[in-house]
Amino acid sequence: MKILQDKSLTDVPGFQAVGIHCGIKKNGNKDLCVIYSQKPAVAAAAFTTNIVKAAPLLVNMKHLEISDTIQAIVVNSGNANACTGAQGLEDAYKMSETTAACLNLPPNQVLVASTGIIGVPMPMHVVIPGIKAACSLIPDGSGASAAEAIMTTDSFPKQITVEIMIDDKPVFISGIAKGSGMIHPNMATMLAFIITNANISKALLTKALKDSVSNSYNMISVDGDTSTNDMVITLANGMAGHPLIDAMDKDYAKFKNALDFVNQTLAKMIAKDGEGATKLIEVSLYHAKTEKDAKICAKSVISSNLVKSAFFGSDANWGRIMCSLGYSGGDFSPDKVDIFFKNAKGTIQLVKDGTGIPFSEEKAKEILDQDYVNIVIDLKDGEYEATAWGCDLSYDYVKINGSYRT
Amino acid sequence: MKILQDKSLTDVPGFQAVGIHCGIKKNGNKDLCVIYSQKPAVAAAAFTTNIVKAAPLLVNMKHLEISDTIQAIVVNSGNANACTGAQGLEDAYKMSETTAACLNLPPNQVLVASTGIIGVPMPMHVVIPGIKAACSLIPDGSGASAAEAIMTTDSFPKQITVEIMIDDKPVFISGIAKGSGMIHPNMATMLAFIITNANISKALLTKALKDSVSNSYNMISVDGDTSTNDMVITLANGMAGHPLIDAMDKDYAKFKNALDFVNQTLAKMIAKDGEGATKLIEVSLYHAKTEKDAKICAKSVISSNLVKSAFFGSDANWGRIMCSLGYSGGDFSPDKVDIFFKNAKGTIQLVKDGTGIPFSEEKAKEILDQDYVNIVIDLKDGEYEATAWGCDLSYDYVKINGSYRT
Repeated sequence: MKILQDKSLTDVPGFQAVGIHCGIKKNGNKDLCVIYSQKPAVAAAAFTTNIVKAAPLLVNMKHLEISDTIQAIVVNSGNANACTGAQGLEDAYKMSETTAACLNLPPNQVLVASTGIIGVPMPMHVVIPGIKAACSLIPDGSGASAAEAIMTTDSFPKQITVEIMIDDKPVFISGIAKGSGMIHPNMATMLAFIITNANISKALLTKALKDSVSNSYNMISVDGDTSTNDMVITLANGMAGHPLIDAMDKDYAKFKNALDFVNQTLAKMIAKDGEGATKLIEVSLYHAKTEKDAKICAKSVISSNLVKSAFFGSDANWGRIMCSLGYSGGDFSPDKVDIFFKNAKGTIQLVKDGTGIPFSEEKAKEILDQDYVNIVIDLKDGEYEATAWGCDLSYDYVKINGSYRT
Repeated sequence: MKILQDKSLTDVPGFQAVGIHCGIKKNGNKDLCVIYSQKPAVAAAAFTTNIVKAAPLLVNMKHLEISDTIQAIVVNSGNANACTGAQGLEDAYKMSETTAACLNLPPNQVLVASTGIIGVPMPMHVVIPGIKAACSLIPDGSGASAAEAIMTTDSFPKQITVEIMIDDKPVFISGIAKGSGMIHPNMATMLAFIITNANISKALLTKALKDSVSNSYNMISVDGDTSTNDMVITLANGMAGHPLIDAMDKDYAKFKNALDFVNQTLAKMIAKDGEGATKLIEVSLYHAKTEKDAKICAKSVISSNLVKSAFFGSDANWGRIMCSLGYSGGDFSPDKVDIFFKNAKGTIQLVKDGTGIPFSEEKAKEILDQDYVNIVIDLKDGEYEATAWGCDLSYDYVKINGSYRT
């Protein structure tokens, strides 16, 4: 697998994308994007588990029920179109219909995503002209402009493109995403759009996405604050021309491996770019009794405000890690736990068999002062492992979330 | 029921208590207390659900298994005796044995509680002399000194005493507690000790405590960070002299009602005194489908960092409330939800049938600027209700938890 540093969505054969400013955001930043596939693409999607679902999600669920393929995605930032009642649903349908009309597609071939403030009617007087403008600009668009147009409080655009070979044919997988570092308040949403020219069946694309999401986006810290608008959409247009992947063979494994890399890279970018975050924290948890225990324990540590606050202060507070493991609901033996902190500055062990051991406070501070810290937890209680990503909890988190924003 | 403003633990007939400084805390504050019952008292207790349990909890579980009655509780603050291995367990036993010897009691008649830093060996060289000194001072002790001695990062001592009449006999219930406003980091513990001269069977005291805990301490916001040391202990010495309460009759109801008041008062004090907190938030949730749904929904709102941050900034951000209801796991219909903010400054409605409605931002700010705000949520979906208490998330929370403390 090759990582293509300077490539983006529009380098995937058969795909076009553009991001523009249409007027939802008051500051003039880009706030609307359209991703277009020249051929109907096999589609798979994952939506928020929040029972309060924003209007676009309801539209997408309907469209994906009717149609196996999708040809375009229209996304706006600055307004979530959530808790907006019947009008909100009508507006979301209108967005998909307008995009479809501009691109000469059946309406159910267009998915819709929104992110931004909750409970405010979508400003359709700027959105509709915006969609028309964006569609006309598609041929000259860029993946970078699309990545920028889906940002809200993100401090940098998030994109990644990789290339693999299947049956001697180059297959590209390219994705863009937006945060939710810890969680995004009003702007509460994590979005990711992944496109590929791979030739893969609907069933296997769906399976690959589901498994991949559980090991990437679902393993980043969101404080339990699952948004009303979260979604991940993958489109595969098949244009790579290799034989259809319709069995769990080595080609599927190769594709899945690259998809995992793309999703984990985007997930880590989201974690690192958490609101107010100063460092990326990676929890590597080993030797759990089951996969579920491994994931529950790793996520509990990364989600703890106490652990997050300690990392902001570069405080080697392993007691909080033991505590968050203990209340996670995961099954393990407290008296077997080993805990280490690790990064380029070195490795220190803080806990052995569930009990604190002496360590150099100086060395610990040196490790914790970096912008990446790996918490290694060995439960010594089984064969399963999991990785979770998050960030520290800083003054700026409270500042960002404690003030009213539009 | 009468609230006795100036009374404390030592005003309950047959009980004595004292708090002293023995040297665990470096700042000279009180750090050790002993509560003593002249007669063996019927005991009930609730312990943390964290599977990482501090040594004192293991000792208490053992003692309560052996004995129905308890005659003393020894509590220290400044050190949690958690994650301290075999030595920690030995130290906890030593604390109970020393107290028992000083008071001429069998060792299993003494319970132990600790709160403070995790993973540091208990400084027994000051604790043992401290216990001896405290026991000798018991006759001259005060409930106020005991309430003070169990504090860690609490900003005020928490105590409440009430009086009810059962069979024309005065029955007193008096409790002390310490926080965990949101959660207490290193000092991660919520402790409460309730004593009464009521004459009640072990089975009914146990039932009353269990039910009462679920409606008080278990309904305050602790960010999911359930400590390794949490415990609530109730002792009833029977000295009020009324007939034994051993059926769920009107006397039980009267006692239970007063016990609920004591526990809810202490729980609210803990919530209000959350680390860095500037306001007490009360979530009143009505018309849920089941009691479980009511509790899950109310707790989800009060535990959301987003909701907490918004209240710190006096931001009428009802979208975050809808969002936290939606991911709570509680069952309800999003399109029926009504949301109001309420306190002495007035009442405003923000959401009707799941959709935002126009409201005066000015009025909202006036309400939210107070140090108490009631979030009223009407699910209009059933017959059950629940109340939860919490506080806002402030810069000071991060400050307190982001720095290393001893």
